[in-house]
Amino acid sequence: MRTTIDKVKIKKVAGGVSAPIGYQSGGLRCGIRKEKLDLGWLISETPADAFAVYTKNLFQAAPLKVTQASLAVKQKLRGIIVNSGIANACTGDRGLNDAYQMREQMAEKLTTESHYIAVASTGLIGEFLPMDKVTKGIKAINFDQQSPESFESAILTTDTREKKIALQMKIDDQVVTIGGAAKGSGMIHPNMATMLGFITTDAVIDPIVLEQELKDQTNQSFNMITVDGDTSTNDTVVVMANGLANNQLLNRDHPEWLIFTEALSEVFQFLAKEIARDGEGATKLVEVEVEGTETEADARKMAKAVISSNLVKTAIHGADANWGRIITAIGYSGVQFDPDQVIVKIGDKTVVENGLPKRFDEAELKHDLEQDEVKIFVKVGSSNQIARGWGCDLSYEYIRINALYRT
Amino acid sequence: MRTTIDKVKIKKVAGGVSAPIGYQSGGLRCGIRKEKLDLGWLISETPADAFAVYTKNLFQAAPLKVTQASLAVKQKLRGIIVNSGIANACTGDRGLNDAYQMREQMAEKLTTESHYIAVASTGLIGEFLPMDKVTKGIKAINFDQQSPESFESAILTTDTREKKIALQMKIDDQVVTIGGAAKGSGMIHPNMATMLGFITTDAVIDPIVLEQELKDQTNQSFNMITVDGDTSTNDTVVVMANGLANNQLLNRDHPEWLIFTEALSEVFQFLAKEIARDGEGATKLVEVEVEGTETEADARKMAKAVISSNLVKTAIHGADANWGRIITAIGYSGVQFDPDQVIVKIGDKTVVENGLPKRFDEAELKHDLEQDEVKIFVKVGSSNQIARGWGCDLSYEYIRINALYRT
Repeated sequence: MRTTIDKVKIKKVAGGVSAPIGYQSGGLRCGIRKEKLDLGWLISETPADAFAVYTKNLFQAAPLKVTQASLAVKQKLRGIIVNSGIANACTGDRGLNDAYQMREQMAEKLTTESHYIAVASTGLIGEFLPMDKVTKGIKAINFDQQSPESFESAILTTDTREKKIALQMKIDDQVVTIGGAAKGSGMIHPNMATMLGFITTDAVIDPIVLEQELKDQTNQSFNMITVDGDTSTNDTVVVMANGLANNQLLNRDHPEWLIFTEALSEVFQFLAKEIARDGEGATKLVEVEVEGTETEADARKMAKAVISSNLVKTAIHGADANWGRIITAIGYSGVQFDPDQVIVKIGDKTVVENGLPKRFDEAELKHDLEQDEVKIFVKVGSSNQIARGWGCDLSYEYIRINALYRT
Repeated sequence: MRTTIDKVKIKKVAGGVSAPIGYQSGGLRCGIRKEKLDLGWLISETPADAFAVYTKNLFQAAPLKVTQASLAVKQKLRGIIVNSGIANACTGDRGLNDAYQMREQMAEKLTTESHYIAVASTGLIGEFLPMDKVTKGIKAINFDQQSPESFESAILTTDTREKKIALQMKIDDQVVTIGGAAKGSGMIHPNMATMLGFITTDAVIDPIVLEQELKDQTNQSFNMITVDGDTSTNDTVVVMANGLANNQLLNRDHPEWLIFTEALSEVFQFLAKEIARDGEGATKLVEVEVEGTETEADARKMAKAVISSNLVKTAIHGADANWGRIITAIGYSGVQFDPDQVIVKIGDKTVVENGLPKRFDEAELKHDLEQDEVKIFVKVGSSNQIARGWGCDLSYEYIRINALYRT
């Protein structure tokens, strides 16, 4: 739900996941990767209320099972240990054991109970972790040597850049901060697993509301991006709230609730868009907004159909204002609507009205489509149901990367 | 349902849709296209029982509405008029009027009632038919100058070749023939609409059973192919049966029913595979067979998820035995199954067993993947539910064609 929040009340700050009070993060290279950082850590001074959402892919990787086991004991975390380079997926009993070992070692390092630790991995599927290296790496972590940049880098696989944000606001006159870091750009390299998101806050917030926010925000951000339509074995989003900001309990009745939820929304959507923007071979971020369906689920479904269409994606890559392909994607989305009411806009220019093409200036539209952000707007009725999804264009580069045979 | 039919009872013959008794077909160039044939006609001497299935895309093109109107009066046809080059989709009232005019003109030419005529179009979306040229073209048709090859060619748009077949068998010692022609290779060129299928037979067959067969066969063939995941505004499959073979009424109780339905199945699947094989940029036909799901609908869903996965398609293009991507596609298909029971084979080689990777000879498998037909087999349980889907690899050529900006 969009409201007019005075945006000057929310400001960007540095520090990513370490920005809120009581969090530290860092990263190092333990040797899974040849050159880049591959082991990231994130801790909270005190146990933070924590919730996670996971891929719906039935082949859930071992680290997800361990994280679920931790959160099943208590819905709080003190730390997260993340490795990149190997997903520890499709690794059977041995992989599960390795993931539990990572948890134990991190718990020991942090002098805390095992169930206060979550584990995440991203990288090649079907390969075992080199546990000798991982164990040494965890031992070598120095919590005093924190570097959020190192954490942001250690979690990456084939991303071309770090994805992080931190927003600050005042709640009950206390400074409250939300930080976030993510990785992912679609199932891009052969056997690479995909998306991780870590959101931290020092807010005092009702855990039930926090859990609901995680689900809602994920649904409107990470679950609305598609690079190539594939959902990996390892997708995980974790949110932590340690209450060190000392505001009054945040819930939907709090007078400043909307400011907090707006900031949270910005964090989630920023990270999701960064992932979409960094899609392999992507030259443009594409946003599709759908309005006027019977239900919000319908709007989401339709937005996803358009943003996932290979023909829409290639047209955008070629800066082609191809309304026919957008129309076709809407039409097969599985959502019911009246074709005669359809409006399609590319940027601010209407290209379809009442379900029929409208004349437009080809050169102007081409210019718009040559920018690195393209917005498509679709209206199919008069309801105020709305959804937004993000993706990227489909290019030769995507094929080149993904068709390369790798031993 | 697969049974062991003595396949020597069914033989290939020439003639495509004109092969069965009482059918003629042909094509000419009326001028919609600059060089190729663009107006096709198919007639039956006597009114044939006829049924059609249409795209589920909500933007149904004008010709589909007219065909539906015809069949709503009586479920019989004497003729079909098809044009290529312009889909007559998203053309509003004028387009609908034009489609009705085509029907009238063909009815007049054939000296028959309008409702005995069906209309089909394929080509650019959003453009109006040049009715002066179409009218002249229909007038110029000479039913005595038949040429199934010309029909097969006239219906094509960006296909690289004709797609036709005719099979013959004996039913009650009478020669019974089934012919078919199709066009389509995915939404390949900007604004090009997609798939048409025409199946003719001289069999005497219970109309209720014929209609059911059309739906079942379409579901196991045309609805199980994907080139790029897009379903067009114009997809139509029509089946006609004029009874001129004089066999005993075919229905499920007929002792030779299985021979007929096997032949029908071959016709539908052959045409569907030809469409998949001809996908723009395709270098390989890919077949995915799924077995062991709880329901057949699940098997279909899973097969489609694998065959539609961009990552699987690009891997196959690069001759990469990337089981991880196949596993991932299975996992996000939305079908429930036990990951520990999964078997995946590429060709005859098992690459996943009990949900875990199995060692295989990379060089051997690469060789298999370099052929122009690749089969993927997935087994997820012990039921005998089964489904097959077809598609093609995803190549640079696909991007090149589809990202070109066309004025």
